[in-house]
Amino acid sequence: MWQLHQFPLCPFSRKVRLLLAEKGVGYEPVREFPWERRDEFLDINPAGQTPVMIGDRGTRLIDSVAICEYFEETVEKSVMLGGTAADRAEIRRLVAWFDTQFYRDITAPLLQERMEKRIVHRAAPDARLLREAMKAAVAHLDYIDYLLDHRSWLGGSTMSLADLAAAAQISVADYLGGIDWKSHEQAKRWYIGMKSRPTMRPLLAERMVGITPPADYEKLDL
Amino acid sequence: MWQLHQFPLCPFSRKVRLLLAEKGVGYEPVREFPWERRDEFLDINPAGQTPVMIGDRGTRLIDSVAICEYFEETVEKSVMLGGTAADRAEIRRLVAWFDTQFYRDITAPLLQERMEKRIVHRAAPDARLLREAMKAAVAHLDYIDYLLDHRSWLGGSTMSLADLAAAAQISVADYLGGIDWKSHEQAKRWYIGMKSRPTMRPLLAERMVGITPPADYEKLDL
Repeated sequence: MWQLHQFPLCPFSRKVRLLLAEKGVGYEPVREFPWERRDEFLDINPAGQTPVMIGDRGTRLIDSVAICEYFEETVEKSVMLGGTAADRAEIRRLVAWFDTQFYRDITAPLLQERMEKRIVHRAAPDARLLREAMKAAVAHLDYIDYLLDHRSWLGGSTMSLADLAAAAQISVADYLGGIDWKSHEQAKRWYIGMKSRPTMRPLLAERMVGITPPADYEKLDL
Repeated sequence: MWQLHQFPLCPFSRKVRLLLAEKGVGYEPVREFPWERRDEFLDINPAGQTPVMIGDRGTRLIDSVAICEYFEETVEKSVMLGGTAADRAEIRRLVAWFDTQFYRDITAPLLQERMEKRIVHRAAPDARLLREAMKAAVAHLDYIDYLLDHRSWLGGSTMSLADLAAAAQISVADYLGGIDWKSHEQAKRWYIGMKSRPTMRPLLAERMVGITPPADYEKLDL
């Protein structure tokens, strides 16, 4: 069975876990806190980041994009990069959008201010950075509303890796109190749909020690 | 014919241009400076980043990873993601390494300090940040040496997208005076090999107005 090195609030590990669940690939989760920079982990992945997957015969898969492409290529069930080459390019554009822009503007500062500062530095969060992240979240939810004006799912007419990448980032931002659904009905309906999937429930049930999510984090009636 | 929106020192556009050249795909380059944040460009790509490709029938390809996967899927010539699924995962890991780590540690600060500050802000570069970038470059060249101890090319036994992603980042860092090849014989030999390819020569002949590269930037005898 695959080992997946991750921690509960790693958005890139969540994207991979959602894909593995949709495809029915079993794995054993192994807790890894990248900020500890363990030598053994850096030997496996010099980038020092989760997720990393290790197979029975020593196969190492590193980087969430590489991991998702690997399982998309090797497991037929639940195609997540479907359609024409242009359709797949649009899905991959949105995966990059959530992995890079959403992460940089929202998830990364929230993780820094509300997780790392509490756990690693035992310091108070910077209120200005939190406000900026939450303001950025409004703009990103606007963009999700815009996408859903034109399509059923974020990447096109069917659920795709774009939805998994978005739900992964949003769920971490939501855990850390960074998401306000007010006046984002379309995005909210889409996210409730994602939350209600059996593949997403186990992730939402997990807790990061020392950090409590908002009351409606797991709820389906926001 | 495809239009490619780019600027001469965009490392991600260089990666795409190297791939298009290896695959023999023609394109018309269109100059776009992302820091101008033109409304027309933001309408096409809300991320505001180059490269963007636009096809004759309006097909839009956005994000360098999505663009490379598109042409790898649609053009058989010069396979750049070859081998088994695990081989491809290793190539994609290294592409992400150069696109993310190398860019963050070296190319991005060099572009900020030696291009944007000069062109946009008309300010002097921060010597401390430049020193840090050049120190990071030494560590990255060490890693390239290490990879080449074990394989003929960065991603495995044949040239792949990993080599193109690395050459793209390194060539921009080199243009901006951030690379010192001293005591990196393996990496230097590999890079001279990349530089001497007919697909790379046109990129090296281009100049960014107002910024002159070092004397040996184009030379094959470093």
